[in-house]
Amino acid sequence: MTHPFDKASALTSVDQNRLSGHTSPVYANLVGPFGGITSASLMRAVLEDDRRVGDPISMTVNFCAAVADGPYVITRKCARAGKYIQHWSLELVQGDRTCATATLVLARRLADFSHQPVPAPDVPAPEECAAYVPPKNIAYSNWINTYEYRYIEGSPPYGKPPKPELQPAISALWVKDVPDRPLDYLSLMALSDCFLIRLFHVRGTLVPMGTVTLTTHFIGSMDEIAEQGSAHLLGIADATRFHGNFHDQSMQLFSRTGKLLATGSQVVWFKE
Amino acid sequence: MTHPFDKASALTSVDQNRLSGHTSPVYANLVGPFGGITSASLMRAVLEDDRRVGDPISMTVNFCAAVADGPYVITRKCARAGKYIQHWSLELVQGDRTCATATLVLARRLADFSHQPVPAPDVPAPEECAAYVPPKNIAYSNWINTYEYRYIEGSPPYGKPPKPELQPAISALWVKDVPDRPLDYLSLMALSDCFLIRLFHVRGTLVPMGTVTLTTHFIGSMDEIAEQGSAHLLGIADATRFHGNFHDQSMQLFSRTGKLLATGSQVVWFKE
Repeated sequence: MTHPFDKASALTSVDQNRLSGHTSPVYANLVGPFGGITSASLMRAVLEDDRRVGDPISMTVNFCAAVADGPYVITRKCARAGKYIQHWSLELVQGDRTCATATLVLARRLADFSHQPVPAPDVPAPEECAAYVPPKNIAYSNWINTYEYRYIEGSPPYGKPPKPELQPAISALWVKDVPDRPLDYLSLMALSDCFLIRLFHVRGTLVPMGTVTLTTHFIGSMDEIAEQGSAHLLGIADATRFHGNFHDQSMQLFSRTGKLLATGSQVVWFKE
Repeated sequence: MTHPFDKASALTSVDQNRLSGHTSPVYANLVGPFGGITSASLMRAVLEDDRRVGDPISMTVNFCAAVADGPYVITRKCARAGKYIQHWSLELVQGDRTCATATLVLARRLADFSHQPVPAPDVPAPEECAAYVPPKNIAYSNWINTYEYRYIEGSPPYGKPPKPELQPAISALWVKDVPDRPLDYLSLMALSDCFLIRLFHVRGTLVPMGTVTLTTHFIGSMDEIAEQGSAHLLGIADATRFHGNFHDQSMQLFSRTGKLLATGSQVVWFKE
């Protein structure tokens, strides 16, 4: 049985540099699909290319316009292929509208040197944290149900009255795919966008807002990702400044055993 | 008199979507130009376009191949133009070689809400910190002389014997252009790449290494950047993990008065 994640990010070859896909209601957001599934589809367009060399190192996805429910086309171009590093450029289009642009760096990784000056924070195990159940009758995106969230700190303010003072931007949580799915670079890409927008956590209110650009660095290697299997990842999300319609948002994803698999940041637009 | 930064990043229009530029020995790195000046040239290609709307919000530059000393051509394409947000795609080419790809998000910024949960660290004023003078007879890139660095913590290990144990990745420093130049988005872009590669700080040795991708978020607005003038900026650089030929590197740039103007991250390749 194909996992809903793989169905939702599946692509069909049109020609050497174009592939077609289709949005999935399972990963729907309030407007258009979850950015993480769009990003995974864009990455898949490269990972399924015969010319691909190595594994993802870094990906930037720019969300230019809401993807409408229905079919889309992804174009891929290898901008530069060295012996060890490849640079790809991507676009996701619907008709004559560019909905997303992206760049992806791949590399063969050989060096032995490994050093992680930032250890995983000392937190309770996932089994000790309750799975988050959002209140009923809340405008709530479908895609959120494709993850199991076990909050350690900073659970979302869904269904709570806003507090008079601004709240902390940080969340710490255990997260995994629902249903279980062994981790790979595609799901790690999507997980890097699984954190709710920090402005909601800080103000406790929902206004029109969305990610405009998302950058994820894949620091973990293939063997570490395989080792993770379908265990919970430890995720940390935070923000440093909200100003003039935009804020930054950073994230870290650690393996069950404390290896930093991915780091990244995004910029969020908000109306006011 | 034109500032060396503006000379080095100057472009001449070829046609509506192509501009030509030329590398400058003032901003030379050990191999090719300083990534910050290449990034500034790519940003300039958009900021000098009549179709431009708003100010930089986020830029990702991928360094695909060393830029050879000499002329280059930048191609620009507006992938999507909304009323408030524009998405641009860029390439820097020499002959048939793509040396860099980039994406740039611009936006008009109107909202009043401003909140900075992360204050600038409490550090000595620039006047209390000595300007860094590197030891003589060291292979040392020209571009480093285009900045004045006043280290608060984590000065570079140039000319020092490597220590037996790994050192911290973090540096905190005051930095500004040499000669003085009022801050703008172009110089802020370049400054986001002014921090030395963290692997050098951690191990104290120089091996072949270089930035493969650089993402900068411009959280500060135009008025805050203008207010900064040519004062020192407070820069923080750090890294979270070195593994399998790559490491991440993060940075924050605060104004003289503690406003977070830019945050960002890069991925660095290293040989071993």
